[in-house]
Amino acid sequence: MAQNFKNDLFLRALRRQATERTPVWLMRQAGRYLPEYNATRKQAGDFMSLCKNPELACEVTLQPIDRYGLDAAILFSDILTIPDAMGLGLYFVQGEGPCFKKRIESETDIAALGRMDPSVELNYVAQAVSTIKKSLDRRVPLIGFSGSPWTLACYMINGGSSGDDFLSVRKWLYSRPDALQRLLEKLSQAVSDYLIMQIEAGADAVMVFDSWGGFLPEAHFERFSQQHIRTIVEQVAKASVGIRRANGETDNSSTPMIVFVKGGGQWLESIANTGADAVGIDWATNLGHARSLIGDRCALQGNLDPASLLGTASHIESEVARTLDSFGRVGPGVGHVFNLGHGISQFTPPENVACLVEAVANYSKKLR
Amino acid sequence: MAQNFKNDLFLRALRRQATERTPVWLMRQAGRYLPEYNATRKQAGDFMSLCKNPELACEVTLQPIDRYGLDAAILFSDILTIPDAMGLGLYFVQGEGPCFKKRIESETDIAALGRMDPSVELNYVAQAVSTIKKSLDRRVPLIGFSGSPWTLACYMINGGSSGDDFLSVRKWLYSRPDALQRLLEKLSQAVSDYLIMQIEAGADAVMVFDSWGGFLPEAHFERFSQQHIRTIVEQVAKASVGIRRANGETDNSSTPMIVFVKGGGQWLESIANTGADAVGIDWATNLGHARSLIGDRCALQGNLDPASLLGTASHIESEVARTLDSFGRVGPGVGHVFNLGHGISQFTPPENVACLVEAVANYSKKLR
Repeated sequence: MAQNFKNDLFLRALRRQATERTPVWLMRQAGRYLPEYNATRKQAGDFMSLCKNPELACEVTLQPIDRYGLDAAILFSDILTIPDAMGLGLYFVQGEGPCFKKRIESETDIAALGRMDPSVELNYVAQAVSTIKKSLDRRVPLIGFSGSPWTLACYMINGGSSGDDFLSVRKWLYSRPDALQRLLEKLSQAVSDYLIMQIEAGADAVMVFDSWGGFLPEAHFERFSQQHIRTIVEQVAKASVGIRRANGETDNSSTPMIVFVKGGGQWLESIANTGADAVGIDWATNLGHARSLIGDRCALQGNLDPASLLGTASHIESEVARTLDSFGRVGPGVGHVFNLGHGISQFTPPENVACLVEAVANYSKKLR
Repeated sequence: MAQNFKNDLFLRALRRQATERTPVWLMRQAGRYLPEYNATRKQAGDFMSLCKNPELACEVTLQPIDRYGLDAAILFSDILTIPDAMGLGLYFVQGEGPCFKKRIESETDIAALGRMDPSVELNYVAQAVSTIKKSLDRRVPLIGFSGSPWTLACYMINGGSSGDDFLSVRKWLYSRPDALQRLLEKLSQAVSDYLIMQIEAGADAVMVFDSWGGFLPEAHFERFSQQHIRTIVEQVAKASVGIRRANGETDNSSTPMIVFVKGGGQWLESIANTGADAVGIDWATNLGHARSLIGDRCALQGNLDPASLLGTASHIESEVARTLDSFGRVGPGVGHVFNLGHGISQFTPPENVACLVEAVANYSKKLR
């Protein structure tokens, strides 16, 4: 049976339909800045144990919805679940971010990566999605997500975060580009399968995070990042039409997809050309400029500097107004989803998020 | 007496005069990838001791000129000498980059920073410049440099490098913008004084590195980065005309200035508007696109991905050709200085630099 959300502002904005105010959610909204998150996390143990426990992942996913009335929930998980499921062994070190026990060092390592069946290796994600959907009870839509092939490859080759813009991975562009492409093709298939599984389990929209696309030289961005995202968008869109119809939706539309390339401000037209319904914009880019480049063929999502949430209430209010003003006119055929330009900081005072949500609602209503 | 360089290709390119081939130098060209550098560095002790020893700083400055016949020398120093001279205590930790013993935490700390006299506190730099000039004996021009006010402030407030795009500094944009402006104004004055001192000591061109300008939101880039660089360019240009005339130059031109903003690809027109003679381009940006935005009112410097020097000779050659092709037509009124899009990696095989230099010479001659 078709879903009737109590609040479908987010989906309407992604589909560029009229909205009475600008919907808002925040990247990494279920996280360490929330005391209730830290309590659940303590119960789970480490970060990956929390991701792999559907009940607790559901609990933390709903915490920011309950507290702030945000307009979308996002699955609590990590962008790197795929390489973990491929056997690389994801873990997190305090202050250093994600690390892999094994890393991809050679063409043999790439050849050894088999086609992963996400319904087996990432079954815990499907379970988390269906648990969350049940618990959300149609209050707001649920977003599923994955890292992009290039971003997954960055971590898989480097073995973790990088202090030098993934130099060791960029080296492959100039020494083993064919092997790198084979890795990206495998990841592209895995990401498609994984996002389709999340949609089957109930995700109402999906987002691809190309966190390190901005480190690619312009001459290689299309070939090593964008062409793979385009393939994913095509495959997921196609599969999602059938899934939606099987679930009782009567239109032929696909599940909305958002593509976010951090540092991608120079390539927004190319990102829009992936076929995504919405383009995520980081904090360095002017939203109005992004819109002038992309036109209104995509919705835009973003792009408040997460650092502004460490500032004063009056600065938060003026930055929210500036962000909404920079997007410009809203109305039918135009879509804006308010968000940060990157994940929320763990140092954010929780009351500042309430201030942001209220400011977005108040100011965006005035613009209509 | 006016200087007649044996090789003045670099200065001609900066002044957009005709060149018979494209000049080339590399950011961080005197560095750890060179065995002769490591030998001198061992003799000096730590990195700052090498910077502060004019004889040894001269030695390492000339090493890549002797080995590769590059078209410009750059003073061996660090972008953070100014805050060090202001008493913050610069040191380097293996694998972690620059750190300060003290950091700027409050408005009181900013008020306590006095106007620095570079001829006293940074006298070792003036000595290094004049020692290098003598030793170069007019073979090629010498470049002096400094970090930009915003980039210096990033390190001074954060206390060192950052894993989160200097979130702690961006916080000041939304909580203490006036205090941050007072710090930037003091740094702006210090950078002007410092670059003028380097020109008085013999620097033939100067470069401002805004390594972290790309982390600023578009709405704040002008106010917190560019306006200060514009002030510096104006002050240094003005002072340099007199210095050059006093040294026997008969024209009224100023010392050429290069401004480089890493991650600044979205703001190239603004960077060109600082009045700089040349704009440095990082590896993410297409040179031809940069040129179409800026026009030919500035020379461009860049922008090969430093990672390509970790690749094969055939990839280096094709990337060099692609870079020169992307710049496009050369001739009078147009200036291109070949460089990397960021500092050279310590892991670069020295023979790959020879390959690059030869490829730039051969291919760029063919384009004329």
